[in-house]
Amino acid sequence: MEDLQIFDTFAINSKIRETYKVSFINDFDSLKSLVEKGKLVAVIDKKIAKLFPALSEILSSSRKVEIECNEQNKTIDYCQEVIRRLIEQNTRKDDTLIAIGGGITQDIVAFVSSILYRGVDWKFYPTTLLAQCDSCIGSKSSINFDQFKNLIGTFNPPSQIFINPLFLDTLSESEIRSGIGEMLHYFFTEGIDIADQISEQYESLLHDRSRLLYFIKNSLRIKKQVIEIDEFDTGYRHIFNYGHTFGHAIETITEYQIPHGQAVSIGMDIANYISLKLGMQEMESFQRCHTILRKNIPPFSLNQNNINEYLSALSRDKKNKDNRLGCILSKGPGKVEKMFLPMDDVLKQYLLDYSKEYTRSV
Amino acid sequence: MEDLQIFDTFAINSKIRETYKVSFINDFDSLKSLVEKGKLVAVIDKKIAKLFPALSEILSSSRKVEIECNEQNKTIDYCQEVIRRLIEQNTRKDDTLIAIGGGITQDIVAFVSSILYRGVDWKFYPTTLLAQCDSCIGSKSSINFDQFKNLIGTFNPPSQIFINPLFLDTLSESEIRSGIGEMLHYFFTEGIDIADQISEQYESLLHDRSRLLYFIKNSLRIKKQVIEIDEFDTGYRHIFNYGHTFGHAIETITEYQIPHGQAVSIGMDIANYISLKLGMQEMESFQRCHTILRKNIPPFSLNQNNINEYLSALSRDKKNKDNRLGCILSKGPGKVEKMFLPMDDVLKQYLLDYSKEYTRSV
Repeated sequence: MEDLQIFDTFAINSKIRETYKVSFINDFDSLKSLVEKGKLVAVIDKKIAKLFPALSEILSSSRKVEIECNEQNKTIDYCQEVIRRLIEQNTRKDDTLIAIGGGITQDIVAFVSSILYRGVDWKFYPTTLLAQCDSCIGSKSSINFDQFKNLIGTFNPPSQIFINPLFLDTLSESEIRSGIGEMLHYFFTEGIDIADQISEQYESLLHDRSRLLYFIKNSLRIKKQVIEIDEFDTGYRHIFNYGHTFGHAIETITEYQIPHGQAVSIGMDIANYISLKLGMQEMESFQRCHTILRKNIPPFSLNQNNINEYLSALSRDKKNKDNRLGCILSKGPGKVEKMFLPMDDVLKQYLLDYSKEYTRSV
Repeated sequence: MEDLQIFDTFAINSKIRETYKVSFINDFDSLKSLVEKGKLVAVIDKKIAKLFPALSEILSSSRKVEIECNEQNKTIDYCQEVIRRLIEQNTRKDDTLIAIGGGITQDIVAFVSSILYRGVDWKFYPTTLLAQCDSCIGSKSSINFDQFKNLIGTFNPPSQIFINPLFLDTLSESEIRSGIGEMLHYFFTEGIDIADQISEQYESLLHDRSRLLYFIKNSLRIKKQVIEIDEFDTGYRHIFNYGHTFGHAIETITEYQIPHGQAVSIGMDIANYISLKLGMQEMESFQRCHTILRKNIPPFSLNQNNINEYLSALSRDKKNKDNRLGCILSKGPGKVEKMFLPMDDVLKQYLLDYSKEYTRSV
């Protein structure tokens, strides 16, 4: 792909809809013009509607549904409630749903638009860093089911995505850190250069959010290259589980107190440490990555009190095979590889040793 | 397509899965061999499990979920219940669901397999004439939502379909008549020859079900030609609404007391009558079709007591445009056409005149 500094729009090839476009914008002109054309129903995160009166003003003449976006609402039951309200708004098969919000808004609207009338068109204005740098492309929707996270879903990309950095200004520092963790995981699958750049600017990025755009574009560029080859996540795309297997289990045992992208940062550090111990990665390489990652790692420790719970969370990962842990390890930046690890005392000891040496306790 | 009398298998081209195969079988060897390979979870209509002990015997060593198939269960809530039971059976992403039952079993399994783990493989053994001659191909799943019929759904064909005429022997005469109505609607979109043949054998088909196979194959042959061109029902496939717009409204006002395919038979007769009145069809052509259709039309009348309710049901059809009735009319067998009719007193009078002259009261 050409230099993303220059281009304000790029296209993703998809098996579901031949192609869909990502546009980087600075205003809401695109939304205004959609509203003027009619035929749209906005589905907007209630918090966003409140934070951006200008948005509500633009949508004042259009049909809209405000939704409560939290993890507890990422269910089929809440999606049914959204469908009910869309029908009240007289939504028809030839209408377009406009999702405005973060990853949860995306999941709900993507899922609803997959099944309502056997599919209606949708477009997306992502408002969080995580949604802008990662989830907005890639086609997946994820819905929780009973105690199972993301058990339900479809592949259904929006027909268009509009990324407006204006939304980043209202995010908390914690949300920025989370987005940085997710971006780092893309950068490390390619090499170390962009990870180094983000590390150098780490503190200023927390405050000067306009600088994030360069990294968002690079994150999407890397993801695009992989999802265009393996949209349905059957093989090659698994490399993006890097940091996620070990990260998800951290989210589980801390009851999601650690933001996703930061848990992924710990997850990458753990994957690198295990790779080091297995002789796949040199100490120098581990240390270079650790120096970058530790800036984004919050206080956390694995110890005798929680290690068994952590191993138990790992053992429930749906990518496991024959009781072996399916995860992505690394031979160094740009060289990640899928592995299946025996879940034995050796692994347990590696995890305890890692934490003792490299994490700070709460 | 080659002569379907000779071939016991044919393939459907699909945009969703490149191709899927329909096999005509006489035994359950295919099911036995699937069971032996493991990796399957059967989802079977409870009634079928009871009627065919041989089937239950084959499935005795495999994971299975028995479901209650009735229109009231064609909901997202019941699908969630099925998912819950599939998880209890330890269903994984790489398992195959085997649906055994009629159209409702198909709708539930097709929908569940679209959304569970973002899609799992499924295969289908249709057991009703309607499912064998029509719904088993074409990719659609349909789920009711609140008071709305088939508002929710996905496009998700099975990876394989096995048609076994053995199942037809346990069907009621009414189910056979319903299937014949649905098949007639396919035959009439092509011409009159096969409709004539089914009419000649009408009485014997009700009892000697082995004779139905020839008509099932022809019905699927005609449907295949159209769905391969317009799988997602955006234009050309609309011809298959022939008889359905007027038929659905009959089902609605009779609270589904008239079986679907028989309502479609009345619907075709009405569409032909309106075509006649609009000068699109000759009386000779109307009469030829009516002679065939009336064998499959149960006692029913439109009159001053129910005509407004009938028009109101027609007015809610989702294919209407600007308050005009979207329906398929006919210039004669093989020449059906999409039209939008004003819903005025003229239409009302046509409907009353039709019923007075051509239907028998209950």
